[in-house]
Amino acid sequence: MQPMQHQMMGYDRAITMFSPDGRLLQVEYAKKTVRQGSTVIGMICKDGVLLVADKRLPDKLIVAEGVEKIFPIDDHLVATAAGIISDAQVLVDHAQVKAQQIKVTYGVDSDTLSIVKDVCSLKQVCTQSGGLRPFGVSLLIAGIDNNNSKKLYKTDPTGIYFQYKATVIGEGEPEIEPILFKEYKDDLSVEQGLSLSIKAMMKALNDKFESGRIDAAFVNAENRTMERVDKEKISKLIEEHKK
Amino acid sequence: MQPMQHQMMGYDRAITMFSPDGRLLQVEYAKKTVRQGSTVIGMICKDGVLLVADKRLPDKLIVAEGVEKIFPIDDHLVATAAGIISDAQVLVDHAQVKAQQIKVTYGVDSDTLSIVKDVCSLKQVCTQSGGLRPFGVSLLIAGIDNNNSKKLYKTDPTGIYFQYKATVIGEGEPEIEPILFKEYKDDLSVEQGLSLSIKAMMKALNDKFESGRIDAAFVNAENRTMERVDKEKISKLIEEHKK
Amino acid sequence: MQPMQHQMMGYDRAITMFSPDGRLLQVEYAKKTVRQGSTVIGMICKDGVLLVADKRLPDKLIVAEGVEKIFPIDDHLVATAAGIISDAQVLVDHAQVKAQQIKVTYGVDSDTLSIVKDVCSLKQVCTQSGGLRPFGVSLLIAGIDNNNSKKLYKTDPTGIYFQYKATVIGEGEPEIEPILFKEYKDDLSVEQGLSLSIKAMMKALNDKFESGRIDAAFVNAENRTMERVDKEKISKLIEEHKK
Amino acid sequence: MQPMQHQMMGYDRAITMFSPDGRLLQVEYAKKTVRQGSTVIGMICKDGVLLVADKRLPDKLIVAEGVEKIFPIDDHLVATAAGIISDAQVLVDHAQVKAQQIKVTYGVDSDTLSIVKDVCSLKQVCTQSGGLRPFGVSLLIAGIDNNNSKKLYKTDPTGIYFQYKATVIGEGEPEIEPILFKEYKDDLSVEQGLSLSIKAMMKALNDKFESGRIDAAFVNAENRTMERVDKEKISKLIEEHKK
Amino acid sequence: MQPMQHQMMGYDRAITMFSPDGRLLQVEYAKKTVRQGSTVIGMICKDGVLLVADKRLPDKLIVAEGVEKIFPIDDHLVATAAGIISDAQVLVDHAQVKAQQIKVTYGVDSDTLSIVKDVCSLKQVCTQSGGLRPFGVSLLIAGIDNNNSKKLYKTDPTGIYFQYKATVIGEGEPEIEPILFKEYKDDLSVEQGLSLSIKAMMKALNDKFESGRIDAAFVNAENRTMERVDKEKISKLIEEHKK
Amino acid sequence: MQPMQHQMMGYDRAITMFSPDGRLLQVEYAKKTVRQGSTVIGMICKDGVLLVADKRLPDKLIVAEGVEKIFPIDDHLVATAAGIISDAQVLVDHAQVKAQQIKVTYGVDSDTLSIVKDVCSLKQVCTQSGGLRPFGVSLLIAGIDNNNSKKLYKTDPTGIYFQYKATVIGEGEPEIEPILFKEYKDDLSVEQGLSLSIKAMMKALNDKFESGRIDAAFVNAENRTMERVDKEKISKLIEEHKK
Amino acid sequence: MQPMQHQMMGYDRAITMFSPDGRLLQVEYAKKTVRQGSTVIGMICKDGVLLVADKRLPDKLIVAEGVEKIFPIDDHLVATAAGIISDAQVLVDHAQVKAQQIKVTYGVDSDTLSIVKDVCSLKQVCTQSGGLRPFGVSLLIAGIDNNNSKKLYKTDPTGIYFQYKATVIGEGEPEIEPILFKEYKDDLSVEQGLSLSIKAMMKALNDKFESGRIDAAFVNAENRTMERVDKEKISKLIEEHKK
Repeated sequence: MQPMQHQMMGYDRAITMFSPDGRLLQVEYAKKTVRQGSTVIGMICKDGVLLVADKRLPDKLIVAEGVEKIFPIDDHLVATAAGIISDAQVLVDHAQVKAQQIKVTYGVDSDTLSIVKDVCSLKQVCTQSGGLRPFGVSLLIAGIDNNNSKKLYKTDPTGIYFQYKATVIGEGEPEIEPILFKEYKDDLSVEQGLSLSIKAMMKALNDKFESGRIDAAFVNAENRTMERVDKEKISKLIEEHKK
Repeated sequence: MQPMQHQMMGYDRAITMFSPDGRLLQVEYAKKTVRQGSTVIGMICKDGVLLVADKRLPDKLIVAEGVEKIFPIDDHLVATAAGIISDAQVLVDHAQVKAQQIKVTYGVDSDTLSIVKDVCSLKQVCTQSGGLRPFGVSLLIAGIDNNNSKKLYKTDPTGIYFQYKATVIGEGEPEIEPILFKEYKDDLSVEQGLSLSIKAMMKALNDKFESGRIDAAFVNAENRTMERVDKEKISKLIEEHKK
Repeated sequence: MQPMQHQMMGYDRAITMFSPDGRLLQVEYAKKTVRQGSTVIGMICKDGVLLVADKRLPDKLIVAEGVEKIFPIDDHLVATAAGIISDAQVLVDHAQVKAQQIKVTYGVDSDTLSIVKDVCSLKQVCTQSGGLRPFGVSLLIAGIDNNNSKKLYKTDPTGIYFQYKATVIGEGEPEIEPILFKEYKDDLSVEQGLSLSIKAMMKALNDKFESGRIDAAFVNAENRTMERVDKEKISKLIEEHKK
Repeated sequence: MQPMQHQMMGYDRAITMFSPDGRLLQVEYAKKTVRQGSTVIGMICKDGVLLVADKRLPDKLIVAEGVEKIFPIDDHLVATAAGIISDAQVLVDHAQVKAQQIKVTYGVDSDTLSIVKDVCSLKQVCTQSGGLRPFGVSLLIAGIDNNNSKKLYKTDPTGIYFQYKATVIGEGEPEIEPILFKEYKDDLSVEQGLSLSIKAMMKALNDKFESGRIDAAFVNAENRTMERVDKEKISKLIEEHKK
Repeated sequence: MQPMQHQMMGYDRAITMFSPDGRLLQVEYAKKTVRQGSTVIGMICKDGVLLVADKRLPDKLIVAEGVEKIFPIDDHLVATAAGIISDAQVLVDHAQVKAQQIKVTYGVDSDTLSIVKDVCSLKQVCTQSGGLRPFGVSLLIAGIDNNNSKKLYKTDPTGIYFQYKATVIGEGEPEIEPILFKEYKDDLSVEQGLSLSIKAMMKALNDKFESGRIDAAFVNAENRTMERVDKEKISKLIEEHKK
Repeated sequence: MQPMQHQMMGYDRAITMFSPDGRLLQVEYAKKTVRQGSTVIGMICKDGVLLVADKRLPDKLIVAEGVEKIFPIDDHLVATAAGIISDAQVLVDHAQVKAQQIKVTYGVDSDTLSIVKDVCSLKQVCTQSGGLRPFGVSLLIAGIDNNNSKKLYKTDPTGIYFQYKATVIGEGEPEIEPILFKEYKDDLSVEQGLSLSIKAMMKALNDKFESGRIDAAFVNAENRTMERVDKEKISKLIEEHKK
Repeated sequence: MQPMQHQMMGYDRAITMFSPDGRLLQVEYAKKTVRQGSTVIGMICKDGVLLVADKRLPDKLIVAEGVEKIFPIDDHLVATAAGIISDAQVLVDHAQVKAQQIKVTYGVDSDTLSIVKDVCSLKQVCTQSGGLRPFGVSLLIAGIDNNNSKKLYKTDPTGIYFQYKATVIGEGEPEIEPILFKEYKDDLSVEQGLSLSIKAMMKALNDKFESGRIDAAFVNAENRTMERVDKEKISKLIEEHKK
């Protein structure tokens, strides 16, 4: 049978069904949602872990600063997402509660991986239980662990996660991934990483690009605290790349 | 496959299903309900946040003052809606309870954004769990926060929200949005904003326009309290625009 | 697509589904049930709020007085309905309990609008949750509030309500509404309103009209108490209109 | 669309669905079950309320006295049914418990109407909630209230009830109703009513008629107690009508 | 529409659906299961109530004595069944618990009819609630009540019951019922009833008949206790009929 | 209608549906699973109850001793199964818990029949409640009761059980059953029964036969304890039959 | 009927359905998922139990060490998986909790088989209950029991398990299984087993092979503790095989 036939026969109508070739089609469709989402980039830098996001502002009277694409989970943990942003919010809320529970119960900061696993466990449930749809969103989760190691994870709608040095998700992936493969290096500073990310975003967004769309933040490796990059710095970098 | 084919194959029959191109069709249909709703306008003004609504009175023996389109959530928080008004009522009831809980638990007024997030979280649930339909309504939520900053948010049926300076939803959007883009300015007073909104409503409603259909209220930035605009003021502004 | 096509494709098979043009077809069908129901009229009069109902007696050995079409909710609150009467009974039972709760908890009579909102909230649930059908009934709710203001509300199967001066629902609406538009005045007495209502009912029912079919009651504005209109008064008014 | 088309399109497959013309088809089918049920007659007489039932004995070794068609609810309350008798049993059990609760809680006999409303409320639930079918039975409920007023109610599968002077349900309705319309009078004694009912049953059952099929009981208006009519009296009346 | 059309249109796919002619098709199919079940006979005799069952042994290495077709409910109460025997077991278990509860709560033996009603109430639930199928079994329940009256009831898959003098269910019904009509008399002794039953079974089973297939038991009217008929007596009676 | 038509019309898609000829098709399909399962034999011998099973090893690096086909329930009770072995495990776990409960509550060993009934009751539930499938497995349960009587039961997917002297289930049934009919005798010793079973297995498995596939155990009638037959004894018996 | 026909008729749309030939098609599709998973090998060696996994890195900026394919359950117990890795995570989490419970409750290390049975019991539930899909993953579970015996189990999506000396699952099975059959011996050391596994992986992955993809760990038979094989050792072995 061809994929088209699997659709005709309804294997893609419920998350509780495998298709005859062993695929979960609803999860694959959810991944398409992610590939159409607005672009986000994550990057391990020598002095922190950086997240850069396209805020994709639908309308010119929107308050750009009011659009959230980078979500703090804890002081040392931050997430961004491509796909359905209201789905992402549910996962981030879940992660925030989990991080607080770990802090209160064990008196230590949560490990990035623990939070990633917890998010993925919630995603997995939505790929196995009837009466639910999979989460239509991939998260990038960045953190600095207690031992000061820098972490960057990507979670997909299946609830599978991978650890990355640098990665991109959303509609800009086809243009930006080759740039990362070529130009990313382990010893970039957050500043250099930001410059690389903005250059890549500009290329991907092309003439839809606007300074106000870019949001950026990083977890500082020294004090293990999230810092938002201010608009001026972003604007300045954009100007440099325009030259 | 074409959209028509997705409909033929039933991807739009349940909220728990993605279509093969990664869309949630039931949510998109709910957005159509919103686009057919009666028009509401929101606007940040220098002395308050203004909401103006068309009450769309179906019948001439209706008591116009008895028709609610602007719903108080708390002293400093107010909402209006386009779409299914009984759906809006559920969300407003939910927001009122939440605002009271925050007041009682923390002894402070609720932040506009917290209320918006809470409303959107309830909306998101209705886009992911079987046995429910999405809310067929978009809300505009206006408030003045503790720090006196003026806030205006729009929430859609997906549970996604954006912060606006000025916006319009409902059937009048295509006519009114260009007017806002052109004539809205940050430093309008509530009085000027009201005048602009009424002018835009008159244009959109055209010959269906009637003075009794317009409802307006604002949260006063000074005392952080909602005030309803009285009928006489509205009538006077209409007369001025008629000239 | 045409409406017929939406039916062919099943958008009208469950309350949890929007049609591609953003409609809830099951709710629209429920409204048809209402339009086929037996006629009821509500009217704000200067000395009370009047409800007049056609009891539609299917069979000549029925005890006409035993047929309930006007349901007391509290001393100062009364309802009537067009559509499925057993559905109306559920809503009235719900309203009675709510009115008692308010009396017991706050020591005051319930406000008409609070009761209307409560009834509509129950109706809304039945338009959003799977495994239920919408209520196939519209209610007219009449009351005199604590401040002696006279109130008349209509609630539809969606859970939307409007406040009226005078209105009619059920199969007689097309004939009776124009009469109300033309002849209703704010300063009618209950007696005059009753006469107008009976005249309108006679026109709508035409040769199916019979004296025993008409039920009438009003909430007296002076003592805030419901009074049933006795059969003799109704018969007398009918005789007058026959001349 | 024609009714046949509504069936083709499945509007009659679930109780939670209205058809496009605003009907609940499953409830209408349940009413057909009632019309095919064995005949029962109820009648208000000057000295009591009478119920007469055809027991429809499928088999000659059945113990006719062991077949229940007339069910006591309380001393002063009795019911009979046409349709699915096991459905009737559920409703009668429910009514018995309710009557006992009223007696224990308030120290008074239950009002006939309260019991009727309670039965109808259970019936209504089964017309609105998914995963259930409507009750396939109509009940006649006869009682003498505390104020000695004689009551006879009919409840249909929708949960709608009417109060009657005399009525008939089940397969014999088309033949027996005209007889009641013509010959029933308010001042019949129970004995005369029984004679009339038997005559009507004989006509309706025609050559399927047999003395053992008839069951009869009445609530005596004087002592407010149910009495079963003995077989001899029934046989004697049959003989008289045969002459 | 013809029955075949009702099947084509799916009215027989769920217990929660009436067909357009007011039938519950799943219940009718369950009755077919009963008509294909192995034969059981019940009979009121002057000195007890007798049950005789065909055990239908599928295989010659089965231990015939280990096959249960006659189930004790209490000392004075016994049941047998035609249809799905594992369904019967559920009902018998239910009846046993009920009988014990009555004994413990009221200190008296349960009345046969109470147990029958309880079994039928469980059966009725399975004809009205979705997610269940009807019980595919009819029970014969035999008992001697406290007042020494002899009782025999038949319950069908609808939850309807009838009291019998003598009856037969299962595949042998068409052959055995005429024999009972002709030869059963009220004053048969248990011994004579057993002889009649065995003769009827031999005729119905014809050349499939084997002595080991027959199981028989009765409740002795004198001591109100169940007694199993021993194999020798059965064999002897068979021999007599073979002559 | 033909069986094929019943399939076309979906009577075999859910356990909660009878087909028009009164069959539960899902249960019949589950029985096919059993008939394709690996063969197991049970046998009452004069000194114990014997179970012999084919372990059907899919792969030559499997540890044959690690494959369980004979499951202890209690010291004196043992089971084996044909069909889905993970289904069998659920039933055995259930039986083990039940046997322990009886021991703890009543201080006696559980009766074989009680355990069989308990297993069958769980199986029956899965043939009547929606949202479940029937168990795809038949169990043979062997035990020695407190009174030292030897018991062997077979339970099928319907939850029906029969007591046997000797029986076989699984793919080898067609070849092995005639051998048992012909050669099984009540007075075989466990040793002789084992020899007979192995001979029958060799015939049924033919050239797929391998010594490592055979598992055997018996409950010793003397000490009421299960004993596993060691590999050497099995190998020796195989050699004898090869001669 | 042919398999294709079973698909056309929907027997493969829900886990609660058997196909007419007694198969659970959803479980068979889940097994296909496993056969497409990345390859894992398990092997009993004379000094430990070895697991070797292909990590299948989708992207070159992935942190290879951050990819988990070998999951510790307890000190002496370790698992790996082929199929949906987020499904495996659920099962491993479940196993970890179970192992801790046994340790805390009984004060002993959990037996490998107990953990395997527990995992399989969870898998079985997902093959029998509606509203769930089967787990799309097979696990290899390796452990050293308290008595120092070395154990290796494979569990499939049905919840069936087998004990192995050496086995392979995932896409590499067709190439690697013959190598194991030919070259595996009971007396290999962990070092030799690792060399054999790597050789087999290289053959199966062919030119997709990369040193960073291979993950390996074993439970040391001496101290009953899991040890991860370091990258250098793996690289060295690869080099040797390249020669």
